[in-house]
Amino acid sequence: MELFYMQEPPEDGRLTLRGPEARHIARVLRHRIGDRVYVTDGRGSEYETELVLVKADRVVGRVKGRQERPREPRHRVTLAQAVLKGDKLTQVCEQAAELGVGEFIPMQTARTIGRLSSTKLERLRAVALSGMKSSTGTVTLEIHPMNLEALVAGLGRFDQALLAYEEERRVGLDEVLRPDVESLLVLIGPEGGFEPHEIQALRQAGAVSFSMGPRRLRAETAGIVALAMVMQLLGDLGWHEHKTTLRGGAIGSW
Amino acid sequence: MELFYMQEPPEDGRLTLRGPEARHIARVLRHRIGDRVYVTDGRGSEYETELVLVKADRVVGRVKGRQERPREPRHRVTLAQAVLKGDKLTQVCEQAAELGVGEFIPMQTARTIGRLSSTKLERLRAVALSGMKSSTGTVTLEIHPMNLEALVAGLGRFDQALLAYEEERRVGLDEVLRPDVESLLVLIGPEGGFEPHEIQALRQAGAVSFSMGPRRLRAETAGIVALAMVMQLLGDLGWHEHKTTLRGGAIGSW
Repeated sequence: MELFYMQEPPEDGRLTLRGPEARHIARVLRHRIGDRVYVTDGRGSEYETELVLVKADRVVGRVKGRQERPREPRHRVTLAQAVLKGDKLTQVCEQAAELGVGEFIPMQTARTIGRLSSTKLERLRAVALSGMKSSTGTVTLEIHPMNLEALVAGLGRFDQALLAYEEERRVGLDEVLRPDVESLLVLIGPEGGFEPHEIQALRQAGAVSFSMGPRRLRAETAGIVALAMVMQLLGDLGWHEHKTTLRGGAIGSW
Repeated sequence: MELFYMQEPPEDGRLTLRGPEARHIARVLRHRIGDRVYVTDGRGSEYETELVLVKADRVVGRVKGRQERPREPRHRVTLAQAVLKGDKLTQVCEQAAELGVGEFIPMQTARTIGRLSSTKLERLRAVALSGMKSSTGTVTLEIHPMNLEALVAGLGRFDQALLAYEEERRVGLDEVLRPDVESLLVLIGPEGGFEPHEIQALRQAGAVSFSMGPRRLRAETAGIVALAMVMQLLGDLGWHEHKTTLRGGAIGSW
């Protein structure tokens, strides 16, 4: 299934796609009138539509059904990843979007080397969208750059905050992850690690550290591996019954 | 800890490093005579050495101790990843090396688009080495390019073969992974998926398919996520008692 993205809600039961999305449907996939395509608004809704107009600059679909969050994880996971040099941050961000992570925080810490330019931030937003679409997700990964102090100050909004810490020698993730969490923050420091006063501030705010094993993973590898570990333990990386809410949905109800 | 790589075994209790490794020790890290550095042979041995000569083109260390496989996973995991375009295959290979995967198989399948040039293969070997070193691993990731037919024919050398399959709708990894395996193969198909006859051949040879959830992950993301899932379930991504064998080791025994 191919999933398209359009922010605007349907009007009179019709969706209009323009720009690259329209061109892709008309020119690359060569869809025709009568074909079914799926469109998400990036806010959880997925519309099944029947194409009634196909032009390279404009495609119109009649909405035949709607699903809410059909393939989203049940838990809201946030990844705070210290800003990385080059395109490594982009890589982690896109992979997080593919997994259905809720929020991505490019984080400034004491030892962060890279800087988050506005160009880089725009690039993060772009790959978050492409990661959602390629993985057939329906909720856009939110991106909120923040320094560590601001993150610590707002730590209370998460049910639990977990800190991948290379000095942690005993505690594995499965020992600290609370099974009842609904929202979870995972923190990955810069290549040089967090500074001791940062670890202290995080712990005082309630963050719990865990070990990912005796090896030293590169920051971008630690990010995606920690997400996979957390989501597997939460049951969000297998095939389960989704909390899918069908609204409308019957043909003609739009 | 900084880990250096040198294939040759010590002679008379001394290791000699040359080329980039020597230059890095002498010029970048500015080590001096008397400093301790660690050197691995990529075959499981790690030597603690005391520097007795430090020049930009030659560094000599006296071996003070030796450990066997101090930070290796307990299970031998092999990743067979269908060849990918661009540098995505390199990315997965390097991350696999960081995790301590034993073998990486760049795989040709019916729908594989990218080709494995000799340049690309050399690049894989280079990142396998740098991934080992950066993660303080002591065993080089083996790289064995293969087409799917050859892999199927040799499937018997693995205790279990697991196939990430997007059409698998019910079975999660935790339901199929045998807890008693020592060697395990994980297969990740190309972007277009395996062909039905390939799935059939794999299953006839004993491979078991599993689902990574309802979302469609890009091949390179599927690779690293599957590795993280498998290694977490096997207990190889936490802090555990390692099967470390100390041989010699006492100061002066060399």
